[in-house]
Amino acid sequence: MFKLLKISGSARRGTLKTAHGEIQTPFFMTIGTVGAVKGLLPSEVRELGGQVILSNTYHLHLRPGEDTVEKAGGLHRFMDWDGPILTDSGGYQVFSLSKIRKLKEDGVEFQSHLDGKKIFLTPEKAIEIQQKLGSDIMMVLDECPASTAKRDYIEKSLALTTEWARRCKIRNSKFEIRNSMLFSIVQGGLHPDLRERSARELVKIGFDGYAIGGLSVGEPNEVMYEMIGHTVPHLPDDKPRYLMGVGTPQDILEAVGRGIDMFDCVLPTRNARHGHLFTSKGIVRIKNEQYKEDFTPLDPECGCYTCMHFTKAYLRHLFMANEILSLRLNTLHNVAFYLNLMKQIREAIEDGKFDEFKKDFLNKYTP
Amino acid sequence: MFKLLKISGSARRGTLKTAHGEIQTPFFMTIGTVGAVKGLLPSEVRELGGQVILSNTYHLHLRPGEDTVEKAGGLHRFMDWDGPILTDSGGYQVFSLSKIRKLKEDGVEFQSHLDGKKIFLTPEKAIEIQQKLGSDIMMVLDECPASTAKRDYIEKSLALTTEWARRCKIRNSKFEIRNSMLFSIVQGGLHPDLRERSARELVKIGFDGYAIGGLSVGEPNEVMYEMIGHTVPHLPDDKPRYLMGVGTPQDILEAVGRGIDMFDCVLPTRNARHGHLFTSKGIVRIKNEQYKEDFTPLDPECGCYTCMHFTKAYLRHLFMANEILSLRLNTLHNVAFYLNLMKQIREAIEDGKFDEFKKDFLNKYTP
Repeated sequence: MFKLLKISGSARRGTLKTAHGEIQTPFFMTIGTVGAVKGLLPSEVRELGGQVILSNTYHLHLRPGEDTVEKAGGLHRFMDWDGPILTDSGGYQVFSLSKIRKLKEDGVEFQSHLDGKKIFLTPEKAIEIQQKLGSDIMMVLDECPASTAKRDYIEKSLALTTEWARRCKIRNSKFEIRNSMLFSIVQGGLHPDLRERSARELVKIGFDGYAIGGLSVGEPNEVMYEMIGHTVPHLPDDKPRYLMGVGTPQDILEAVGRGIDMFDCVLPTRNARHGHLFTSKGIVRIKNEQYKEDFTPLDPECGCYTCMHFTKAYLRHLFMANEILSLRLNTLHNVAFYLNLMKQIREAIEDGKFDEFKKDFLNKYTP
Repeated sequence: MFKLLKISGSARRGTLKTAHGEIQTPFFMTIGTVGAVKGLLPSEVRELGGQVILSNTYHLHLRPGEDTVEKAGGLHRFMDWDGPILTDSGGYQVFSLSKIRKLKEDGVEFQSHLDGKKIFLTPEKAIEIQQKLGSDIMMVLDECPASTAKRDYIEKSLALTTEWARRCKIRNSKFEIRNSMLFSIVQGGLHPDLRERSARELVKIGFDGYAIGGLSVGEPNEVMYEMIGHTVPHLPDDKPRYLMGVGTPQDILEAVGRGIDMFDCVLPTRNARHGHLFTSKGIVRIKNEQYKEDFTPLDPECGCYTCMHFTKAYLRHLFMANEILSLRLNTLHNVAFYLNLMKQIREAIEDGKFDEFKKDFLNKYTP
């Protein structure tokens, strides 16, 4: 399903076939946590060059529930997106959003952050939910220990995560119709040997793709890059590699340069809502007084609707007035920026000029 | 500038020429208080059949300030709307939003609801601000007394409002380039004789159009309709009549039937944000449990993007999850509903069947 087309340094250009179309890699997935990109229509994500929307099993399980989504004809139809959907397994959310949780061999008990209801999530259940949602790329249930946890704990957690991955694969093999891929998640904190062990064990079980989890959680960027470097060599060349929850434009360039194919991150959408806008010259904090009478476009190099129709002065005005249109125009732009960056990365790899592109980009860009 | 094309009963079908294009009457103005329709692009308002956007002098004066808007090339360019703009004078907002105000012969002193700054607004200043914004239809500064105020007070207030209207006209006559129209506002509370007096005095001064203000502020609907009936006969046939801040679909039908040509109201946009949706069968409160697994469109008779692409179940899900897309899709639909109602009203008048249309509409519609 994954086809490697070209390599430039360690950067890879490929395609990934899914039940909802072929994806050009490397790619960035726009976040649609509860089955909606915050402020954008699916058709707009498509027009901006978006290929995949990521939704969260945890959120959709709590509300509206996978049974409702299944009755709606699956998540694609429910949210009006006919492209590929990747669903997170819920593992990360259970460990980041739920205050009370009990980790057991069999699964994890947690309280809904919405109404406090107790829910027991097992690896099998995570797969069943994702199948009901109609996901194209499913993720195994994993435990996400804090990267600052003791090595002992991380090692124990790793064994559980590997075992849960195995159980996810077994549960998934029992579905008669299997249009979706199943990815596993490499953990191991900031310990190179544990990362290697995790990767080797998961590859032995065999999955359609491999994610790297538990990074970009507070460690210095260089440490994250190092961890990617320790993990990638132990992953097969013929499967896609997915760096979860990362990151800034710089992070993405560094990771692509280390052989990563897939990304997702809340940065473009969340930061948009905080008036923190990505441009070819770096970050613009739109609320700054300096933009009050700046009647130029946000990013002259950007062709998105926001940049083609509005000035920084207007965007600042909307932001200061707390207008809904501010969220929308800012989100549109930031998503356009990220998707355009990925397009440029793909072209640079095709041209065998990835390192050059990366250098040029970072030269112009002030974080 | 106003041309009467057809009359059906007392309902009027006409055109109103402005510096930014001809408007088909009767029409409904979409509210864009601070220079933005909450959640919609101007191009979408246009596609939905919107002809005029209403912005508020009070809000734009406070933020970003009329000088900034003027430097941006005027409000049309600032907000990317090339159709007509009507600007309220700020009178209503001064009396409804500002806690502290001092009414003087010369004008009104009030405190900004944003930062408490004291501002003195005079009739002349209201015109100067609106000229800087580049308004197509300007409103005179008026005092809006509570309809429950004593007759004595309302009578005194009326004299002031008339005098202010005169001063607005004088100030406006001093501008060399006058592309904009100036409308005055009939007040007089719920006293038929004061409404008549107000109308007669304003008509004597002479304006491009006449608004009826101070209605739909808590009085029974029948009383409002009665007041319209007492006012309209004293307004000239060859000028447009504007019922300010009204109203529900029923109110609009009743008012058109009494000779009103122009409307504005926050109902479609504000109610959308509260999940209160207008359909051909009446109001749908989208959060209701009954829609949880209702996979039918919100309004099968509506051709808007929301109704063509999403189900009630999905709209309910977005609303319950407090998603930005909920505000957007709901607003899109409600604005489509209002603009489509106006289109149907215009067609019915053209066909000489306004009363029939009104009866049919209200038969199907459950408020």
